[in-house]
Amino acid sequence: MSTHRGHMTLPVEAGQEAVVADLFKRWQADALRDSDGTSMPDALAHGDHDVYSIMCLVRADQDFANAHPEYLHRKYLMSSPVTAHEQQLSILPLDGYSKDKYELDETSDPQTWWEVRDRTAGCIVPPSHWHYDSQTQQVHLIQTTPYHEYTVSFLARQIWDSVSMYNALTNDWQGPRIKSVDPYHPQVRAHLKNYFAHWLKTHPDTTVVRFTTFAYLFVIDSGESNQDIYRDWTGYGETVSPQALKDFEKQFGYALTPEDFVDAGYYNGTYKVPSQRYKDWMTFVQNVVVDVASELCEMAHAAGKRTAMFQGDHWIGTEPFLPCYEKIGIDINIGAVEDGVALRRLTDSPGKHVREARFYPYFFPDVFKPGNDPVAESMRNWVKIRRAMLRMPLDRIGYGGYLSLANQFPEFIDHVTQISSEFEQYLTKTQRTQSHQHRGKVAILNAWGQARAWLQQQAREQRFFVPPRPDVMELVGSNPLECLSGLPFEIQFISFEDILTNGIDDDIKVIINMGEANTAWSGAENWNNPQVLSCIRQFVAQGGGLLGIGDPSAWQANGRYYQLGDVLGVEKEIALTMGRVASPIKIDREHELSQYVTNEVTFDGLSYVYAHNQDTRVLASNGQHVALAASEYGNGRSIYASCMSFNMETSRLLEHILIWLMSQEETKTPYLSNNPHIDVAYYPHTQQLALVNASPLSQTTTFQDHNNHHHEINLKGYEWRWESMDTSI
Amino acid sequence: MSTHRGHMTLPVEAGQEAVVADLFKRWQADALRDSDGTSMPDALAHGDHDVYSIMCLVRADQDFANAHPEYLHRKYLMSSPVTAHEQQLSILPLDGYSKDKYELDETSDPQTWWEVRDRTAGCIVPPSHWHYDSQTQQVHLIQTTPYHEYTVSFLARQIWDSVSMYNALTNDWQGPRIKSVDPYHPQVRAHLKNYFAHWLKTHPDTTVVRFTTFAYLFVIDSGESNQDIYRDWTGYGETVSPQALKDFEKQFGYALTPEDFVDAGYYNGTYKVPSQRYKDWMTFVQNVVVDVASELCEMAHAAGKRTAMFQGDHWIGTEPFLPCYEKIGIDINIGAVEDGVALRRLTDSPGKHVREARFYPYFFPDVFKPGNDPVAESMRNWVKIRRAMLRMPLDRIGYGGYLSLANQFPEFIDHVTQISSEFEQYLTKTQRTQSHQHRGKVAILNAWGQARAWLQQQAREQRFFVPPRPDVMELVGSNPLECLSGLPFEIQFISFEDILTNGIDDDIKVIINMGEANTAWSGAENWNNPQVLSCIRQFVAQGGGLLGIGDPSAWQANGRYYQLGDVLGVEKEIALTMGRVASPIKIDREHELSQYVTNEVTFDGLSYVYAHNQDTRVLASNGQHVALAASEYGNGRSIYASCMSFNMETSRLLEHILIWLMSQEETKTPYLSNNPHIDVAYYPHTQQLALVNASPLSQTTTFQDHNNHHHEINLKGYEWRWESMDTSI
Repeated sequence: MSTHRGHMTLPVEAGQEAVVADLFKRWQADALRDSDGTSMPDALAHGDHDVYSIMCLVRADQDFANAHPEYLHRKYLMSSPVTAHEQQLSILPLDGYSKDKYELDETSDPQTWWEVRDRTAGCIVPPSHWHYDSQTQQVHLIQTTPYHEYTVSFLARQIWDSVSMYNALTNDWQGPRIKSVDPYHPQVRAHLKNYFAHWLKTHPDTTVVRFTTFAYLFVIDSGESNQDIYRDWTGYGETVSPQALKDFEKQFGYALTPEDFVDAGYYNGTYKVPSQRYKDWMTFVQNVVVDVASELCEMAHAAGKRTAMFQGDHWIGTEPFLPCYEKIGIDINIGAVEDGVALRRLTDSPGKHVREARFYPYFFPDVFKPGNDPVAESMRNWVKIRRAMLRMPLDRIGYGGYLSLANQFPEFIDHVTQISSEFEQYLTKTQRTQSHQHRGKVAILNAWGQARAWLQQQAREQRFFVPPRPDVMELVGSNPLECLSGLPFEIQFISFEDILTNGIDDDIKVIINMGEANTAWSGAENWNNPQVLSCIRQFVAQGGGLLGIGDPSAWQANGRYYQLGDVLGVEKEIALTMGRVASPIKIDREHELSQYVTNEVTFDGLSYVYAHNQDTRVLASNGQHVALAASEYGNGRSIYASCMSFNMETSRLLEHILIWLMSQEETKTPYLSNNPHIDVAYYPHTQQLALVNASPLSQTTTFQDHNNHHHEINLKGYEWRWESMDTSI
Repeated sequence: MSTHRGHMTLPVEAGQEAVVADLFKRWQADALRDSDGTSMPDALAHGDHDVYSIMCLVRADQDFANAHPEYLHRKYLMSSPVTAHEQQLSILPLDGYSKDKYELDETSDPQTWWEVRDRTAGCIVPPSHWHYDSQTQQVHLIQTTPYHEYTVSFLARQIWDSVSMYNALTNDWQGPRIKSVDPYHPQVRAHLKNYFAHWLKTHPDTTVVRFTTFAYLFVIDSGESNQDIYRDWTGYGETVSPQALKDFEKQFGYALTPEDFVDAGYYNGTYKVPSQRYKDWMTFVQNVVVDVASELCEMAHAAGKRTAMFQGDHWIGTEPFLPCYEKIGIDINIGAVEDGVALRRLTDSPGKHVREARFYPYFFPDVFKPGNDPVAESMRNWVKIRRAMLRMPLDRIGYGGYLSLANQFPEFIDHVTQISSEFEQYLTKTQRTQSHQHRGKVAILNAWGQARAWLQQQAREQRFFVPPRPDVMELVGSNPLECLSGLPFEIQFISFEDILTNGIDDDIKVIINMGEANTAWSGAENWNNPQVLSCIRQFVAQGGGLLGIGDPSAWQANGRYYQLGDVLGVEKEIALTMGRVASPIKIDREHELSQYVTNEVTFDGLSYVYAHNQDTRVLASNGQHVALAASEYGNGRSIYASCMSFNMETSRLLEHILIWLMSQEETKTPYLSNNPHIDVAYYPHTQQLALVNASPLSQTTTFQDHNNHHHEINLKGYEWRWESMDTSI
């Protein structure tokens, strides 16, 4: 092994020591890691490099898990709705769910912890009208109303961990079915601490403990044939136990009910506006997990090891944007990064920890198989990631999986060598400093605010898109966040609660509200609040900018569907205003922004949005459906866009939209590339200039620097060039 | 003039006596009419034909109207929302409205009859916080909340009748601006009766009084530059007066408010679910108009004349499907008919009156101008109308406008000659009897029920469609009603109220619910009623059929958006279930209905609908969006279709869907054409068989008669052939 200190974490694999040694050097690695399914060969455990060892404590001791079904992970599930045909009805709660994964939790009394609902009348069935028969595993209801639907919300315990299940079913892993235990219980926590103490002692070569689940996993519900039926990578559904619910009641002064978790079958999906009760439960869980995790980190530190956490599988209770995250004591935050948004999710979180990006593709047979082109997938990602890297510093990179598989694709090895070399230059030239940003902070307003900053905003299109790999959440639909991730603006995520509590900070110059109706992203019922509306109207009237994308401020009330339709100058036709006479659209080609609405800027789909102010200027449309519209409101401005799917031209349009919304279009903006395919970033601390070509073709751009000097630069396809600004370029 | 008694009403025009005489014969006319803008030449007033004379009493005496502004038609308008920037605000109620058409109604006290609302907080501003200044025509508000929007709902009087305005602006008619008076006032009513009595005396040649507005007109709101800004051809907005409101309160025991009319700016559009208060107002107005109209009809009858009413412009208070309509004493109901739905709206209304179809195009310069092809428009209509004529008897046909214009298009004259000749055969062969229908009644369920049977169901697409002629409501979007208008089923329209009051009649075999979410057609909040849901579930479970088109049973509640999604087997993604994992669609090509899902059956647009029952069979899709799905539910069946735009193949699919929903697909159905372009209708009373080819090409069809005899018939393009069933064919 070389003594050169690199910047990459390399996955190892027993029997592939020579490959590891070769790639360690070529890829400029400085750390080795095991992966799920691989272990660290002894020959590699020592050397001038870090050794990351995976630690998933809640599934570490299967003997303990098997001996204690009462400590397994539990969750509330809702039975499928069953229709009564008479005045009595029997429901098998687990009907339709995986019997390999779930058991009814009979350790908690159904009459106390379960709930039966009439979903047609929308009411609770009194416990006196039903009983659970443990013999047949059925719930029997009496006095039902014929042709009403009934559901049972019940506690299930998980006898097969979702990740173990995934690897068994997708990657054909053999071996026992793994169970996870819930460290909420003092007995479990004590046992895991003992286990971990022993582990620390018996792993002297480990320099970094790479935690991959502190307490709870993301939500995956599995159906009858073990197929996924519901997923929420950032949901808090699998954190429930009767004891925790009792303690919650003591702490918050009110009791949660099964309905707070099953949510009429919607399960508080992250894309939904969270109820206050669900947010309270999240806070409760966060406190618990932070407590557990900080204790474990302390133990690791005491043993002379650093701690890392992989955020890809693991979010619940350890969300990096929450203030409590910093209490845990994580030294390295590892994010699974496939695009600019995922990178910003990693790099923008506060705190002093190291940020390490785990890139895709993972070295698994689903991608690394004959006929596949892993370079293409990687390059698609890398183009997006580079953009975002220019805007916020990244510290390390890494990969995971089977190195032997990757090694069968020499072009991929070369490609990663190139990535790593570009990354090395980036570290050298930037010294991990912040690049220059345009004037004015941009705030993204949604129901989650900063807590869920840079979370991909799931859209309806996702359901109607058949992904090449079902386990990979390939986001389709509206992704203006991806455009934004590579733009030189200070970005802040704010919530409606923030506005109600603190108003709008003076340094915020533009507010963006985007996403589909009914979602946490657009805000839904949060718009049914006069204070929110008047606050934003005032903000715009006094010179601010409002950008609405998708269904901004959508909530039907008081004669409007877009509650800020007065500011945005548009309204959506939801079949309530069909009598209003439409005027044919005239596209305004004289607007300052019109020049950036090029052919590459596409507005897919029909918005059903129309201009309803006479002075609304329509800049683009899809037939008679407004796609892009600009308005003035008091001293401020607004833009409505039906969507902003990521590409470089749309990103450049967004950059100019933000500048226009800040009324800065007449001001000279330095480092504003006139070629949409080339990004320019200036690092004032190191006086270095980065120029990155996102296109496979040669491109030329012109821009001005902060001294108003004019530059013209040509880059080869995909080239990333650095220039010192103290020398002439 | 020939003594031949025909079946057509012909418009006359002074100076065109020879043309009239010629066409009277060629078109087999038996009646002459004047039109708006034409009058009856003396030379034609006598003869062996009826003379229809237009009578619009409310605008007949302009001297009276000009002398009595307090009797003009009045309506509630809502001012545009105005945003307060401080704690006081002034609003010009008429801002944005036509000053040529409206005046503020100062004869009624604003403090009593107007209403000011805070549209951001959603509440009424107390009258003590505003006053009206008649000098400036402004409403001044105090104690406003900054950045809240305010509106004034005010009474306006109409100083220019909408029809007069239309003819002046669109057809460049000169002459004074006509005003309409409100016969609600006893003084007006007495005056108009006197006027009418005199008119009857002075029009001895008139045999038919053709009323074209008894009391009130449809709703058209006009903007600042006299452009239409809101239209509702069947709305009751322009029927308001303080006296009527007072009388309403006495009669119904509660007072209506301005908000009941302006409806947050939605104005109770016919496509909206009507409130009980709006329906009460409609009942009130209907009683008034029936009272006025029946008195006028009685006078006409006493003078030895028959009465006709033109339904095209005139609906308010005289809706032919209401039981009270028959009290009026109309002898001839004239409908403006451009398609099958309009024809069925005319022919399906109960009562003994004669049904006369007024065909399009109207002989006006907008169509009859050089370069235009009126035959093409007429033929498009005629193909649809013929289909529907086979299903319900029609008595007469007619045209309107300037005969001299039509006469400049000889192909059009020939074309109408052909239409009239086909109509004559139809009368002869059918003897105005009912054709054979398939088994089982089909009910169409919406918020209006039978009261608004066969009303075109406006869809959102209409707004985003630029019509060739803005005044013609060219319906685009979902029009399964057009498909249905030509199918041999007994059709009944039912309302949710019907179901709640009477349940579902035993003879109903299929219920159709269709239309977009939020509309009166789909039903919106009516679906938030357990009794409606359980009633329909029981109906299907016991063997009935449910057909949902568009957004059937759409209402977000209790964990479902499609409230009957359990029966339909589908759910719509409105961004609340994005975590539910999608399974790629497999199109079922083995279903009994699959053979009818041909390439000509198109499902435009993305439904955002997915199958959510395992046994839902998807028969067609648009990508991963379900377009057509079939389910079984108990002993019954259901079909979901995303849309059913009219064409012959889609109509034939619908015919088979209805047969399948009745579980009759195994039974031999007589007169079921196997060629979608050919309709077959059998008239048992006359033993005549009609065969109609809707396509321009030669077509062959096979079918069985009621004696199970097999027939094979070839028809030329557009041919309509009659066969006697007692002879071999």
